[in-house]
Amino acid sequence: MFIRPDRHNSYERWKPKDDVMVEECGVFGIFMDDRRYDPAEAAYLGLYALQHRGQESAGIAVADGRDVKFHKGMGLCSEVFKDNLGKILGGNISIGHVRYSTTGDSKADNAQPLVMSYRGGKLALAHNGNLINSSILREKLEDEGAIFQTTLDTEVMASLIARQSRHGILKAITAMMKVVRGSYALVIMTQEELIAVRDPLGIRPLALGKLDNSYVVASESCAFDAIDAEFVRDVRPGEILVINKDGLKSYQAQSSMKTALCVFEYVYFARPDSDIDGISVYRSRENMGIKLAQAFPIEADLVSDVPDSATPAASGYAAESGVPYAKALAKNRYVGRTFIQPSQALRERGVKLKLNAMKRNVHGKRLVLIDDSIVRGTTSRKIVEMLRLAGAREVHMMISSPPVICPCFFGIDTPSHDQLIGSKNSVEEIRRIIGADTLNYLSIEDLLKTVEGAGCNFCAGCFNGNYPVDMKEALKETEALDLATIE
Amino acid sequence: MFIRPDRHNSYERWKPKDDVMVEECGVFGIFMDDRRYDPAEAAYLGLYALQHRGQESAGIAVADGRDVKFHKGMGLCSEVFKDNLGKILGGNISIGHVRYSTTGDSKADNAQPLVMSYRGGKLALAHNGNLINSSILREKLEDEGAIFQTTLDTEVMASLIARQSRHGILKAITAMMKVVRGSYALVIMTQEELIAVRDPLGIRPLALGKLDNSYVVASESCAFDAIDAEFVRDVRPGEILVINKDGLKSYQAQSSMKTALCVFEYVYFARPDSDIDGISVYRSRENMGIKLAQAFPIEADLVSDVPDSATPAASGYAAESGVPYAKALAKNRYVGRTFIQPSQALRERGVKLKLNAMKRNVHGKRLVLIDDSIVRGTTSRKIVEMLRLAGAREVHMMISSPPVICPCFFGIDTPSHDQLIGSKNSVEEIRRIIGADTLNYLSIEDLLKTVEGAGCNFCAGCFNGNYPVDMKEALKETEALDLATIE
Amino acid sequence: MFIRPDRHNSYERWKPKDDVMVEECGVFGIFMDDRRYDPAEAAYLGLYALQHRGQESAGIAVADGRDVKFHKGMGLCSEVFKDNLGKILGGNISIGHVRYSTTGDSKADNAQPLVMSYRGGKLALAHNGNLINSSILREKLEDEGAIFQTTLDTEVMASLIARQSRHGILKAITAMMKVVRGSYALVIMTQEELIAVRDPLGIRPLALGKLDNSYVVASESCAFDAIDAEFVRDVRPGEILVINKDGLKSYQAQSSMKTALCVFEYVYFARPDSDIDGISVYRSRENMGIKLAQAFPIEADLVSDVPDSATPAASGYAAESGVPYAKALAKNRYVGRTFIQPSQALRERGVKLKLNAMKRNVHGKRLVLIDDSIVRGTTSRKIVEMLRLAGAREVHMMISSPPVICPCFFGIDTPSHDQLIGSKNSVEEIRRIIGADTLNYLSIEDLLKTVEGAGCNFCAGCFNGNYPVDMKEALKETEALDLATIE
Amino acid sequence: MFIRPDRHNSYERWKPKDDVMVEECGVFGIFMDDRRYDPAEAAYLGLYALQHRGQESAGIAVADGRDVKFHKGMGLCSEVFKDNLGKILGGNISIGHVRYSTTGDSKADNAQPLVMSYRGGKLALAHNGNLINSSILREKLEDEGAIFQTTLDTEVMASLIARQSRHGILKAITAMMKVVRGSYALVIMTQEELIAVRDPLGIRPLALGKLDNSYVVASESCAFDAIDAEFVRDVRPGEILVINKDGLKSYQAQSSMKTALCVFEYVYFARPDSDIDGISVYRSRENMGIKLAQAFPIEADLVSDVPDSATPAASGYAAESGVPYAKALAKNRYVGRTFIQPSQALRERGVKLKLNAMKRNVHGKRLVLIDDSIVRGTTSRKIVEMLRLAGAREVHMMISSPPVICPCFFGIDTPSHDQLIGSKNSVEEIRRIIGADTLNYLSIEDLLKTVEGAGCNFCAGCFNGNYPVDMKEALKETEALDLATIE
Repeated sequence: MFIRPDRHNSYERWKPKDDVMVEECGVFGIFMDDRRYDPAEAAYLGLYALQHRGQESAGIAVADGRDVKFHKGMGLCSEVFKDNLGKILGGNISIGHVRYSTTGDSKADNAQPLVMSYRGGKLALAHNGNLINSSILREKLEDEGAIFQTTLDTEVMASLIARQSRHGILKAITAMMKVVRGSYALVIMTQEELIAVRDPLGIRPLALGKLDNSYVVASESCAFDAIDAEFVRDVRPGEILVINKDGLKSYQAQSSMKTALCVFEYVYFARPDSDIDGISVYRSRENMGIKLAQAFPIEADLVSDVPDSATPAASGYAAESGVPYAKALAKNRYVGRTFIQPSQALRERGVKLKLNAMKRNVHGKRLVLIDDSIVRGTTSRKIVEMLRLAGAREVHMMISSPPVICPCFFGIDTPSHDQLIGSKNSVEEIRRIIGADTLNYLSIEDLLKTVEGAGCNFCAGCFNGNYPVDMKEALKETEALDLATIE
Repeated sequence: MFIRPDRHNSYERWKPKDDVMVEECGVFGIFMDDRRYDPAEAAYLGLYALQHRGQESAGIAVADGRDVKFHKGMGLCSEVFKDNLGKILGGNISIGHVRYSTTGDSKADNAQPLVMSYRGGKLALAHNGNLINSSILREKLEDEGAIFQTTLDTEVMASLIARQSRHGILKAITAMMKVVRGSYALVIMTQEELIAVRDPLGIRPLALGKLDNSYVVASESCAFDAIDAEFVRDVRPGEILVINKDGLKSYQAQSSMKTALCVFEYVYFARPDSDIDGISVYRSRENMGIKLAQAFPIEADLVSDVPDSATPAASGYAAESGVPYAKALAKNRYVGRTFIQPSQALRERGVKLKLNAMKRNVHGKRLVLIDDSIVRGTTSRKIVEMLRLAGAREVHMMISSPPVICPCFFGIDTPSHDQLIGSKNSVEEIRRIIGADTLNYLSIEDLLKTVEGAGCNFCAGCFNGNYPVDMKEALKETEALDLATIE
Repeated sequence: MFIRPDRHNSYERWKPKDDVMVEECGVFGIFMDDRRYDPAEAAYLGLYALQHRGQESAGIAVADGRDVKFHKGMGLCSEVFKDNLGKILGGNISIGHVRYSTTGDSKADNAQPLVMSYRGGKLALAHNGNLINSSILREKLEDEGAIFQTTLDTEVMASLIARQSRHGILKAITAMMKVVRGSYALVIMTQEELIAVRDPLGIRPLALGKLDNSYVVASESCAFDAIDAEFVRDVRPGEILVINKDGLKSYQAQSSMKTALCVFEYVYFARPDSDIDGISVYRSRENMGIKLAQAFPIEADLVSDVPDSATPAASGYAAESGVPYAKALAKNRYVGRTFIQPSQALRERGVKLKLNAMKRNVHGKRLVLIDDSIVRGTTSRKIVEMLRLAGAREVHMMISSPPVICPCFFGIDTPSHDQLIGSKNSVEEIRRIIGADTLNYLSIEDLLKTVEGAGCNFCAGCFNGNYPVDMKEALKETEALDLATIE
Repeated sequence: MFIRPDRHNSYERWKPKDDVMVEECGVFGIFMDDRRYDPAEAAYLGLYALQHRGQESAGIAVADGRDVKFHKGMGLCSEVFKDNLGKILGGNISIGHVRYSTTGDSKADNAQPLVMSYRGGKLALAHNGNLINSSILREKLEDEGAIFQTTLDTEVMASLIARQSRHGILKAITAMMKVVRGSYALVIMTQEELIAVRDPLGIRPLALGKLDNSYVVASESCAFDAIDAEFVRDVRPGEILVINKDGLKSYQAQSSMKTALCVFEYVYFARPDSDIDGISVYRSRENMGIKLAQAFPIEADLVSDVPDSATPAASGYAAESGVPYAKALAKNRYVGRTFIQPSQALRERGVKLKLNAMKRNVHGKRLVLIDDSIVRGTTSRKIVEMLRLAGAREVHMMISSPPVICPCFFGIDTPSHDQLIGSKNSVEEIRRIIGADTLNYLSIEDLLKTVEGAGCNFCAGCFNGNYPVDMKEALKETEALDLATIE
């Protein structure tokens, strides 16, 4: 599901529906060759490490060669499985999913993995990404007689796979890949097999690991560390990996001239201890700080960060500039993830509940403050105000990425155009709105240099509006598509 | 519901598996023509009155001409909607469902109404009954590419409807009715219409009511009283009722030479204040007691009942026989419906937690005790023992229905053959097992006399093994069926 | 805590405080001599049988000769102990308590047993009843330096006991009994002993039972049946029973010229299968019906009851009058005890959610309807209306007790004077308000005949305002009391 | 309550009781002079900022001049008040408490504030600290007839205050302070007053703030920032502050030659953005790192920290030594505070669930790793192992405090002697156990230099066994005490 990028174009069917959410997620899958882990426990550990990719719901499905069991629910994986992991122990394959949503309308019905029966038996799917043509595909499938019980793209992919399943699961997945457009890091489980699929552009990350003779796939490599598995390689864009008792087989279902890994994974989303497509997330962030220091040298007394994601960048800035690093903001570690304050007066305090200015450190100081991005600008404005009240003499804001000017249609939750401060304002206007003395953003060029050497190209659509898929074209094609001709 | 265990055997495939549940349920639907009730509140009141038909899960879906909202969950309707009714207020149509299960394995995923999108928009279904050929139909639909996310027959019916929906919902429902075999009292809601469907044999009850200009359908007439609606008539076997802003239209989709309303509804399941197909449930039970008194006159000091369902029968027995009525057993009103005792020692006390013999009433007395049925016999044995310990001189057990000798395949949860005491033992053997001085069952003939005058014939399959559907034939036909030919 | 009976006297300190509730409760205690039951399981079974005496909170405390463990919480005992009974297994003594409240302000802090440490070690108390001088005693104790953490009379009694505990527990209890006035069926547990105390007037019931060599005490005899114990005798008014490893000892601490067992226990509160002070509750209710039939013969077609407590009286009426008995009202068995409807519109339906008129039984009939009492009159009015709408030709209301004209100060929750319909209206006025054709109440004389032969006198204060304690005198005495002189 | 420090002394009554816990807590109180905040909301914000001082339970009590309302429960304050803050809105004074416990036996009954009625009306207390003579005092109070319903020292203090309350609350508090020994930062509320008390040694912190004309007290100054209040000064050791509608009055109830603020507050417990007794916690930690760098210069490639409390020290070490700072360990931000893993296998993974080595940063590197303390040593051993597996060439552990060799008896939860690695092993032995290349601890002298300039002396009892109270003497005195002589 996606949000129409432009109110004035002709794609009326892009119109966002009320019950549709754009989400970021984490996926995990393991095929155990031995008894080192129970598959559900391994999935739990993996999801636990991937929890930053989604805190709204969690789920695990397990296969034992004959049947599939699963449990899923709302909340952190530790909450969801507190009393329920025992129900899904046993078997030799598992897949898992964590899901993120910023809205209160989130529903248990949309938790994943999606488990179903189909011609071939049982099928479970866990998906990270976003299809841009799923609405049209849903309609075409409905025209054929299909029913849909969720608003998930995953169900559209499942329906497309089931539709072709008389040819076997591999051909069915290949057929599905021919018609869907967008991003998908997809983990599929049948009773006997674990299958990993990454979209032809490689927009969302997906990595392959190994633990003795057991194979594991996950959105980020930190999930491998969580079970002491070794990173093997990233799943290739357009690749289908099939893992079963005969081992691992790779099929290159689709290939693309140019890949388009989401660069925002490095800026904000991924965990610093993960490597994605060959690049250390921490190192890339540190480099963002170094580039900022090189591009925007400022006479200052201290450099600090908005905790926690900007910390490596601040560290890099300090090292490169020689300006000493110190904490300007203390973070309350007990701010709950879906924390709703019990009264309106409290909700209005907003970021002040989470961050507190370190008066002793900032009083009378000229301060460089690094943040990873500015989305709506309200948080930045309050932070600058807080620092000034604490006595900061100057506040120089540095952003370790370019201004976000466009929404994402490929799996990251962003507000619409009119709520993106970077989409409507010049840098100078933003500086005035947030009240900083100076404001500087990392250039796209510098940002891309921090991920240089990766085994792929990048999507920086949110920064420049250049999406890796020609959306108009893709929708037109999909509309013209006769599903009956797909093999 | 049951799953075909083996594609290649013949009658054995009917055997219910452990993980399969045969359920009894209650359904409700209303199309509000005015503002007298909010549709969700009306459904709530209706389900509240139908709660005896299912205590495991409850759900309500509401339509407003454009969209469908719903909420469902595990537990009594008062629990499920305690904090959630507000979410589904508004609109002008609602349907609701309560569901029963005796097992602990019940899943939220199987709660109804089942809500989905299909070619025509939104579709919600609530079903009471059981299809005997759903396994085969599922396979055929899966062979066509369908996926199934629940184990409900309702999903099979929905899939069949969606498959034909290009012809409009009415034709699609008619087509579905051509292929499914078994019992269904089905309430369907689209964005704009309320549709009620009863299977051609009329196995499960379904009634039509009216409140000013608003139409209402429900499993039992007591749900009409709950909203001050008037009973209009029973939905006819094989009838489709379509209710929308233009009023009510009736279509006779299927007809059968002989109808087969479940007689056990009168014996035990329905509420005494309901009328079903023209017969008062209370009155029929009272008559069962009268017939017992006529058939089995016994010299006794008092007649009593196993509370609560046998009370009208005991009352009838007392009136006819002249033996005074008094309570022999006190019932603990706080025994929870899904009450699991917190320790093994407590669980072993069984029925003693629920019933206590009234020593003062039974001591030294010759007692006629009326119960509605004996299923496994264990409860009856404990009750007789309890009464003897309390000093009863003689215990004459009378059952207001014949011995249950066969499982039900049409929507009532019964144990399998080998667990039915009546299936393996003569009446004399049962008497010895439960320890009564005498034991007498109402004859089928007498039972059917108590429902004489109803506008239908009856299924007494659990008492005589004569099921209203030739199951072998139905399965053979279904297997031979080519779905593609169905219009 | 208590409610001032008369606005015009001078006892300003009687004024009820907002957070004070007058409650009815059930108590249980057992000293296990063998391993037949775990003491916590025995208490659980006992409380389960006494659940009708209080559904708001439940608690059990267990002693093992050295220490006391306990668990208590809000809700039915099956809810409170679902996951918690295991925590208090072991030991050889237990006491338990269930508590009732009609208000929503009930607090967990007021759950019992109250467990504390004192000079002698650990002390646990469970109390049914109400002290009329506890406010004054609290103040006197506070003047001495005591603190109070609940609003329970039980804590006042505990404080008084602890104050004298240097003389041993028996003398301390005797000293407490000298100063408190009101009703108390009190079960006390130390590390090694079980102690039962009944107030000198015997206002609330308390019985002694035996199971092999284990002694058990409980509010009603039905709790003995629940553990297969035998009823031995009622605890005598003013008696202290001390049960320990040396067996049972009885001390007559106080005696009164005239005892005053609450007659309302028979009318409504107790379970029909209990015997209290020698009288069967069921039999007394049946006799109430017989007396009504003798006093008020009416030409009618059927006699019925408001379920469930009036059923024995209706049965007695039917037997005596020859008018046939049949159900006029069906009760929804799934109305939760603390059931709050999820919307205002639903709450306004009131008793219609719980009861439904049996149209088929009452249509065109002249009906005698028996209820146990009329408190505010609103329920009766709705019931009569419901029956008339269902077609009843005449509704003759019979109440199996006299009009309630005064509040209770001894442990039963009653509304204040101005909310008691019987306190402000003549019988004829009440008849008009509730809309019945005739209305008749049982006379006090007839009521007392139904409990004739009991080993005690009765309090009928709610019916005639004659309380067994001279409240003004008692309060004056208590105010004049110098606690320091109490030994 | 406390743990006997020495198995061989004679104070057998020190023996820890099973149900007794040594805890660290946070307290807050506010007297609102205007309507800027609702008192309950202000307390909520304060507790939210103090959440790091205790995550087991939270509570708030509110006074309005006539009565006291309160709510408390298990969990974070955001959890406890999610649905309950509304119940305690209104009034003009509030106090709050957060409580910490490492054991699973924690009970709701021990949550604070403790609210009670006493001679003077209502009294609410919130306490941070630990009395060493409370067991003896409890016994003496019990001998006088007192009862205790919790195991809290707070209840002992309340009982002592109530005992003397005929002289007014101020004299009663003064009398209490004469007999209790140990640490207490105590916030007391009556219907009309807010009172703050700090023990004569000033062991636990307590500060005074102001917001316009409203006074506020809290364990740490970060709670003032949370409501935009100004820090005024620390409450003085032995001081009683009484705040009411007439403003603030100070009484010096007790004074001591030497104060003894807990130095561990700076090392680990307090929030970095708090100032305590004139010293910035962040700055002191940074100085600990600087002192470490000066004392133990090491040739290394990078300096890092065990997140999060050691981060300022690592920052100071890096600045002073010139060794670059980088993250060696990534922390999982979703590790719940009372997080219990759902299976044994998962629990055994321990710290690996929480921390992950940053391979890219540490591979081949010589690493200085700063932690704030080593308690049992098991975590440090696993961290060193994890870093070596990630390829660290050398791991040089630096601890920003001296070895913990003695348990704390003044309010911080520490294991007993035999579980403290520093109590039984030399530094070299510890180094070998944890597997580091070198291990260095900050000296007490250097540690005390980092808090130089504070307005007080320090307790470093956990590092050197020199407790600020002669415990044997204190217990002997208390035993000899005749409570009756205390005025």
